[in-house]
Amino acid sequence: MQIYGDSISGNCLKIKWLSDRLGLTYDWVETDILKGQTRTPDFLALNPAGQVPLVILDDGRALSQSNAILLHLAQGSPLIPEDAYDRAKVLEWMFWEQYSHEPYVAVARFQVRYLGKPVAELEPRLVERGHAALTVMETALEKSRFLVGRALSVADIALVAYTRMAGEGGFDLSVYPAILTWIRRVESELGLATV
Amino acid sequence: MQIYGDSISGNCLKIKWLSDRLGLTYDWVETDILKGQTRTPDFLALNPAGQVPLVILDDGRALSQSNAILLHLAQGSPLIPEDAYDRAKVLEWMFWEQYSHEPYVAVARFQVRYLGKPVAELEPRLVERGHAALTVMETALEKSRFLVGRALSVADIALVAYTRMAGEGGFDLSVYPAILTWIRRVESELGLATV
Repeated sequence: MQIYGDSISGNCLKIKWLSDRLGLTYDWVETDILKGQTRTPDFLALNPAGQVPLVILDDGRALSQSNAILLHLAQGSPLIPEDAYDRAKVLEWMFWEQYSHEPYVAVARFQVRYLGKPVAELEPRLVERGHAALTVMETALEKSRFLVGRALSVADIALVAYTRMAGEGGFDLSVYPAILTWIRRVESELGLATV
Repeated sequence: MQIYGDSISGNCLKIKWLSDRLGLTYDWVETDILKGQTRTPDFLALNPAGQVPLVILDDGRALSQSNAILLHLAQGSPLIPEDAYDRAKVLEWMFWEQYSHEPYVAVARFQVRYLGKPVAELEPRLVERGHAALTVMETALEKSRFLVGRALSVADIALVAYTRMAGEGGFDLSVYPAILTWIRRVESELGLATV
């Protein structure tokens, strides 16, 4: 399997962490978004949407969208709950992540860290919605060790990616103690160094 | 089953169309976003994220996120392909819809139709990315009758919702003939009147 990914992208790192956790073998093909490497004719032939991560499966077929890749690769593993309702809640968190979390928490981090924008100059809507997303997570994690059920799932991997980097976008995680505890728990499960 | 939904929202209508197609019985609880009905304490107790659609399943448990609901309700039906790769492609389209289509095509339509903004005053980035999304779909649908495989799937239901309303946001669909043909095909499958 080949993973086309940019190492600065949480969406790409999700796939690496999952693959490492599952013991899958893969070649990582570093693909620099900022250098336009997702917009070359060769890359667009692989993924017309021009986005990483992109996975080329062992049979040569392509798959994109980080959370779709997570769900596909984790099939049959304990990272997808057996219970139908728990599985639906995993999907709920993963769609919510792409719609209500990533566009604020990850975009703020990208603007601050990679475009050099001062935190104080971030668009107020971005900051407000990022905090709204973190508040939803904090409320859930006050009551539960993981996002769904009692064990690590692909939902935790999807959500931890940009949440653990939120500080780089100016979000002070010290006001979200349940999130901080959960981040350490998920990092420990995945064997990641604490950031 | 209860479906809390706003009838002007494509995300909510997806759930209605799927339920009708599958012959599920449900009560539709009209929930007006513009009147703040997703922000009341009662609603937030059901869904802390304050979003519709929200489904209360027959056992009383709640589920949100339109595409997670589609995938949950359609389990075991022909609307989710049996082949693992096809299933992954369905997920890919559905995550792509929420990240790369809905935030442009649906938001433009909302601003024009419900906030009264003239099409000419839409943010250029919104229009540009909306057309980029429609171009990705057009390219795929030139080669295929449905988004994944040879039959209707939940991916078509997820994508048709705002695509068939794109004209209301100023997107001229006549330049996307494959999309137009596909919309008619999906409408016919779902028994929807042509818009």
